[in-house]
Amino acid sequence: MAAPRRATLATLPSPADFAPPPDTATRRRWREADRASRPDRVRRLRERMADEGVDAYFGVRTEHMRWLTGLVMAEGEEKVAGHSGQFLVGAGDLVVMTDSRYTEQARREATESTVKEIGYDLAHAWPTLAARVGARRIGVEAAAVSHALWRRLEVAAPEVELVPADGWIEAMRGVKEPGEVERIAAACAVADRALAALLPEIRVGITEHELALRLEWLMRTAGAESLAFNVACLAGPEAALPHGSPGDRPVLRDAVLLFDFGAQLEGYRSDMTRTLFVGEPSARDLELYDLVARAQQASIDTIRASVAEATSGVPLLTGRTADAAARDVIGEAGLGDRFGHGTGHGIGLATHENPPSLSRTAADEPLCSPSVFSVEPGVYLPGETGVRIEDLIHLDAGRGVVERLTAFPREVLALPA
Amino acid sequence: MAAPRRATLATLPSPADFAPPPDTATRRRWREADRASRPDRVRRLRERMADEGVDAYFGVRTEHMRWLTGLVMAEGEEKVAGHSGQFLVGAGDLVVMTDSRYTEQARREATESTVKEIGYDLAHAWPTLAARVGARRIGVEAAAVSHALWRRLEVAAPEVELVPADGWIEAMRGVKEPGEVERIAAACAVADRALAALLPEIRVGITEHELALRLEWLMRTAGAESLAFNVACLAGPEAALPHGSPGDRPVLRDAVLLFDFGAQLEGYRSDMTRTLFVGEPSARDLELYDLVARAQQASIDTIRASVAEATSGVPLLTGRTADAAARDVIGEAGLGDRFGHGTGHGIGLATHENPPSLSRTAADEPLCSPSVFSVEPGVYLPGETGVRIEDLIHLDAGRGVVERLTAFPREVLALPA
Repeated sequence: MAAPRRATLATLPSPADFAPPPDTATRRRWREADRASRPDRVRRLRERMADEGVDAYFGVRTEHMRWLTGLVMAEGEEKVAGHSGQFLVGAGDLVVMTDSRYTEQARREATESTVKEIGYDLAHAWPTLAARVGARRIGVEAAAVSHALWRRLEVAAPEVELVPADGWIEAMRGVKEPGEVERIAAACAVADRALAALLPEIRVGITEHELALRLEWLMRTAGAESLAFNVACLAGPEAALPHGSPGDRPVLRDAVLLFDFGAQLEGYRSDMTRTLFVGEPSARDLELYDLVARAQQASIDTIRASVAEATSGVPLLTGRTADAAARDVIGEAGLGDRFGHGTGHGIGLATHENPPSLSRTAADEPLCSPSVFSVEPGVYLPGETGVRIEDLIHLDAGRGVVERLTAFPREVLALPA
Repeated sequence: MAAPRRATLATLPSPADFAPPPDTATRRRWREADRASRPDRVRRLRERMADEGVDAYFGVRTEHMRWLTGLVMAEGEEKVAGHSGQFLVGAGDLVVMTDSRYTEQARREATESTVKEIGYDLAHAWPTLAARVGARRIGVEAAAVSHALWRRLEVAAPEVELVPADGWIEAMRGVKEPGEVERIAAACAVADRALAALLPEIRVGITEHELALRLEWLMRTAGAESLAFNVACLAGPEAALPHGSPGDRPVLRDAVLLFDFGAQLEGYRSDMTRTLFVGEPSARDLELYDLVARAQQASIDTIRASVAEATSGVPLLTGRTADAAARDVIGEAGLGDRFGHGTGHGIGLATHENPPSLSRTAADEPLCSPSVFSVEPGVYLPGETGVRIEDLIHLDAGRGVVERLTAFPREVLALPA
């Protein structure tokens, strides 16, 4: 095994190594770009509706709502928002539903939509809404709408047929506009800077919870409007939990310290995992680190090779192929069963998007482009240790681009205990 | 109009006025109480299953998962967790499903359950799972399970009938155990202390966003493991948005400043709204404040009167009656159409629970007891101002208790500008 590259204290990353948060003018430009794009997004959805033979589309996902209408609903808000923000797209109209709590906000943000205050009982309003957009056959986000609501709508307007319409907007959102990629990159930079700023505070004995809270604070006071997801900070054997939560466990000497975290900026998310060392890494941990780093590089190299070929007309690789490239490296080391999750997921207004998906069960079709996705192989030894390395990759086959948006170094970083 | 009571600077609340966060022994006692209660919770669910004629119950809500099995999943985690944590209760078995990312955690936390790693495809595993618990008819959380998943399960095991089973566990959870009330009260105290600590930092010009972040930080570094929901801090006319989000808007002189916020502690939530003043309150704002305070008091008084009667065998009042008591006061002032939302909601492991519900559409049955719920009337004048006052009430009819768990003063609080 080749010794992994290793940072010295003198070469520790510093916040100034990474791009600063966007200024007000940049943020305004992004919002204007969205406003300019929304009519085309709705037009393309209507094309899909026509192709699928439905007269209308009923959507409930908050990311779709934001992308199509401009209405912003914070993560989790949908749990108390009732039907507010849910929307119905007809051939000539886009109606955003609200109850009185959200009407004012919707009028302000969803400026190109018709805001209709329907209260708390969608089924009651459903026949009128369907008639308003002239719909006899409505595509419905069946993977997000509850079975109970689906049944209530069927009963409320038996003459209106409901058709599952999952993945339509997801497919459109998988292909990123330039302003979307810029915002993901800006969110990545916020996270890069925050981890760099945290490094001097990491020491044996401080708890996972303290570090997670501090990292969150560093992101949210320097450009992030919120987190992309709860910060994972896992020390030593805890790193074997691919979705563990930080606890009152102290950072251990000569063991791994795994951070999986992301920022949200103007709605767009970042996602990065770094497995650091505090004290002297063990030979076993270094070996795992090297293995995971090689697996990640193998996937990225495979993607890069495919993009090079794509310029001469060869179709882009599938998410299964990109997954297999990483998985094979770990499998060859005899640790295939210690890498249970997929290699990567799309990201944007949601932290996990599909397409694209890099996994054994991904669609058997070329990765979409331009797109942004994670590449994050890991190896987990329960009760012992875990290593994951995750970066976000921006793929733009048309321009021959395969670039890392997460800029924080990936080399072995051993901090003083 | 009687002048509302008014705090002076000398009588401003201070963090020391409220209970300190629980110590480790108290937290351990709560966890032990849960462990001791879980078998009985499952037993009562099985009784309901028998009454409803189903052999098994398929649950997906994370609060139900935690309450029945002990498995903890942070807010939002369910979006990326696939089927992990979803559970199937049979007559003699409680199976928690996982994929490899969550298996280790589930084994650790859901100690009385059978953890079954099924991967990412529940439909594939469904026939075997149904056979394992011997189920031909399964109650399903139809209001939480997507229509798409419901259809996949029907197709995977056509011989197994799926039956909507909404509200069964909600009804059980509406009645609170002593340890649950204690945790809600502890979360309330964390929030009380945090707002008291924030008061000296409030001044004209500081932004809603800065105050919201600071209030969050005060809760999360002094007892709260997370927020119950995103902090609302709304200045002046923004307070007219009942579910608005803090922005880069500055605190205004001589106007309202509304905080709606809650802590989460050992899973249990608090929820409180205070409408403060910075500078000199206008006569109009004071009038609204007095109106809303009287509406809230009318609802609480009505509940208290009903509890007194209940000791002599009269059924407890309904949530509609408790709602009407507040609504009538605002209606009599000619502002009924400025109070669009319900008067209150249950709270516990979820921020919004039902039952109990205090609203025009609440179930026509007595409030459950012992229970905890908010009483939060509000009046909103779009573009001008808004006032809401929200407290959590602990109702225990059997012990004649109607007590406020949120202890932060409700009198008019005018801070120096």
